[in-house]
Amino acid sequence: MLSQLDYTQSDFYPRLDALLKRGVDRDTRIDGIVKTIISRVRTEGDQAVIQLTAELDNLQLEASTMELPAAEIERHASLIDLELVEALQSAADRIRTFHEKEQLRSWSYCEDNGTRLGQKITPLERVGVYVPGGKASYPSSVLMTVIPARVAGVREVIMTVPTPHGEINSAVITAAKIAGADRIFTIGGAQAIAALAYGTETVPAVDKIVGPGNAYVAAAKKMVFGDVGIDMVAGPSEVVVIADESAKPEWVAMDMFAQAEHDELSQSIAITPSSAMADQIIQCIENQLPKMQRRDIIEKSLADNGAIIRVETLQQAAQVSNYIAPEHLELVVKNVTALIDEITNAGAIFAGEYSAEALGDYCAGPNHVLPTSGTARFSSPLGVYDFQKRSSILHATRQGASEMARIATVIAASEGLTAHEQSARYRI
Amino acid sequence: MLSQLDYTQSDFYPRLDALLKRGVDRDTRIDGIVKTIISRVRTEGDQAVIQLTAELDNLQLEASTMELPAAEIERHASLIDLELVEALQSAADRIRTFHEKEQLRSWSYCEDNGTRLGQKITPLERVGVYVPGGKASYPSSVLMTVIPARVAGVREVIMTVPTPHGEINSAVITAAKIAGADRIFTIGGAQAIAALAYGTETVPAVDKIVGPGNAYVAAAKKMVFGDVGIDMVAGPSEVVVIADESAKPEWVAMDMFAQAEHDELSQSIAITPSSAMADQIIQCIENQLPKMQRRDIIEKSLADNGAIIRVETLQQAAQVSNYIAPEHLELVVKNVTALIDEITNAGAIFAGEYSAEALGDYCAGPNHVLPTSGTARFSSPLGVYDFQKRSSILHATRQGASEMARIATVIAASEGLTAHEQSARYRI
Repeated sequence: MLSQLDYTQSDFYPRLDALLKRGVDRDTRIDGIVKTIISRVRTEGDQAVIQLTAELDNLQLEASTMELPAAEIERHASLIDLELVEALQSAADRIRTFHEKEQLRSWSYCEDNGTRLGQKITPLERVGVYVPGGKASYPSSVLMTVIPARVAGVREVIMTVPTPHGEINSAVITAAKIAGADRIFTIGGAQAIAALAYGTETVPAVDKIVGPGNAYVAAAKKMVFGDVGIDMVAGPSEVVVIADESAKPEWVAMDMFAQAEHDELSQSIAITPSSAMADQIIQCIENQLPKMQRRDIIEKSLADNGAIIRVETLQQAAQVSNYIAPEHLELVVKNVTALIDEITNAGAIFAGEYSAEALGDYCAGPNHVLPTSGTARFSSPLGVYDFQKRSSILHATRQGASEMARIATVIAASEGLTAHEQSARYRI
Repeated sequence: MLSQLDYTQSDFYPRLDALLKRGVDRDTRIDGIVKTIISRVRTEGDQAVIQLTAELDNLQLEASTMELPAAEIERHASLIDLELVEALQSAADRIRTFHEKEQLRSWSYCEDNGTRLGQKITPLERVGVYVPGGKASYPSSVLMTVIPARVAGVREVIMTVPTPHGEINSAVITAAKIAGADRIFTIGGAQAIAALAYGTETVPAVDKIVGPGNAYVAAAKKMVFGDVGIDMVAGPSEVVVIADESAKPEWVAMDMFAQAEHDELSQSIAITPSSAMADQIIQCIENQLPKMQRRDIIEKSLADNGAIIRVETLQQAAQVSNYIAPEHLELVVKNVTALIDEITNAGAIFAGEYSAEALGDYCAGPNHVLPTSGTARFSSPLGVYDFQKRSSILHATRQGASEMARIATVIAASEGLTAHEQSARYRI
């Protein structure tokens, strides 16, 4: 049903690589399609976006109907249960509180000679937030992408969300209203990414595009990267649960299901030094699975990508987890503080049995847009800092410049850059 | 000799776009070549790197001679002038002092119910620093890339530098020693990027690759992005100088030359509200150019990409500069503090007439690896933060989890994610 690996096997890491599909080339077949879409949008603008939306989303738009009018946004907010509105508002408040602590601040220091050095922090001016459509259209993702931009002080937040066949998710629109998106365009796919990156007659060009999407969206984001900023190239979602004998196996199983129910590509892995716990988790998975509403997706996800990994110690568990560098990591062990210290690679750490990933997915506060596919080795959760940038500042006094120029002229001369040398020499 | 633009012209922005080559597609002809190189290195490892280095760099390596031995590093350090060694050491000290202030720190806060939330900061484990070879091989770039990694606490810093025909730049090797690179491989181009990204028998795979390079290196970095982190896709270097009537025109001209002497693709732009200053800068350029050692490069750079832009006010100057989002921005005006406040997009700001870009290029402290081609709209100087990553942490108490779960279950139910709902419900 799900793979079982043992750390003591001599071929453990190759087996783990196979499970993680590491070293497998990304599917580049869609790159050609995406390239054509981007090129069409760059040259034909609105017309290309309209045609592609008709073809791919079965939705006939005009330039004047690409944007959702304010009255429509209000109408959708009135269509959902008050309980849900209140839950979204509470989640937004918690997310805002957490993200306010992420803000970068300008800083500087002064040398004895009066020379000042530092960095100035500025928000990005206009950003695009991509929200997936269809079955992966989640109001929580809207909160997680729009709120950090707003906290950063971004002047204009443009949201795009595909509405295949014109079906609009009222909860998503309401979340956009609560989070404070400025404009909403009902377009999606690579054509929305291209429109945000390069602008059309109707869609304004942005400075950075964030938010999850399908493989076409991911490929498009990678292609426009450099012309605009992007947050990351997102892959399937993953959870690793490190559990010792103190864990409740039915909770671990349900947390794995929560990951697996997203889609068949999701990955749920439990790592445990307790053989009894491994057996119990498997037993709980078998017992609970038939009762799950999204059973088919969960079953295929676990069969294709799920695993129980047996290790000898929690140190080994941490080592394996650091190798995986999971998007989500649950630590369900007695001495959780000690184990946190061992973790070097993880998008988000959920410490202790009460810290279910599901709480973080919706409302705990930290962002749920996280590095996937091992990219937590080098990247971070989406945050306010993604919507701010740094400019370094040098404000030299005459004396400070003179001191620095004595160093600079020597190095410039050695590099054969005589204009650099002369430019520095003027300041001595 | 160089373009002259006037802000009051009705077609000013289209002309500026043409000057900046905005909206021009990146040359993708080399993508195919780079793709093949990456693919060869991934499948053939060392053998591909050796063959490509022989073909492209006219250098016959073996697996055992790809890495520069410690004794060779010492030998190169003994080959350069003591004055240069000392200048590099002084520059390294200044750069280290500045970068130590950039470090991210872990943080957390506690709610009334005992739930703790925060972010844990961890250095990247192993990074690759690409140093260009040939005429663009600068010891200063080694300091600027290796030192931030070291300050961040990266465990292993791998440097690659191509040595065409086996010619090694002793100053570059000495800078690597001073900055503290752990290993140096004498390989370059797309093959070095591929080796760092995926590893070979001899070159270890890294988590992130930083540093400037030519168009092949830039294309390779963009292709491996996602499998490893990269700093940015670097384009030609640029400076904008905003000067009022108080500026010394011969200094402005020399600072423009210093940018232009890098290569023909470099861009030097002066913006001034003073028509007299514009004329004087042009006069100084004409007077000083014949005396410059790298005259041919400077002349072509200025003719192809240089410009004087006349504006009516310093506010307009700031507006035009923010549109350009230059890599380097010099502010040579009387009231420089007020003008800094108007600047929203710039990689590095050099404030006042003593703050020559050349000082920042070598030793002032701030990094000289900066966002080019307008990417300062959304990205930042290379810094210690590029070698650190964040993991968010949620450590919920029973009561805290219960409160959050009441919100999460409502949103999960609305999204139809019943395993999420059940996982949260367990915690109530």
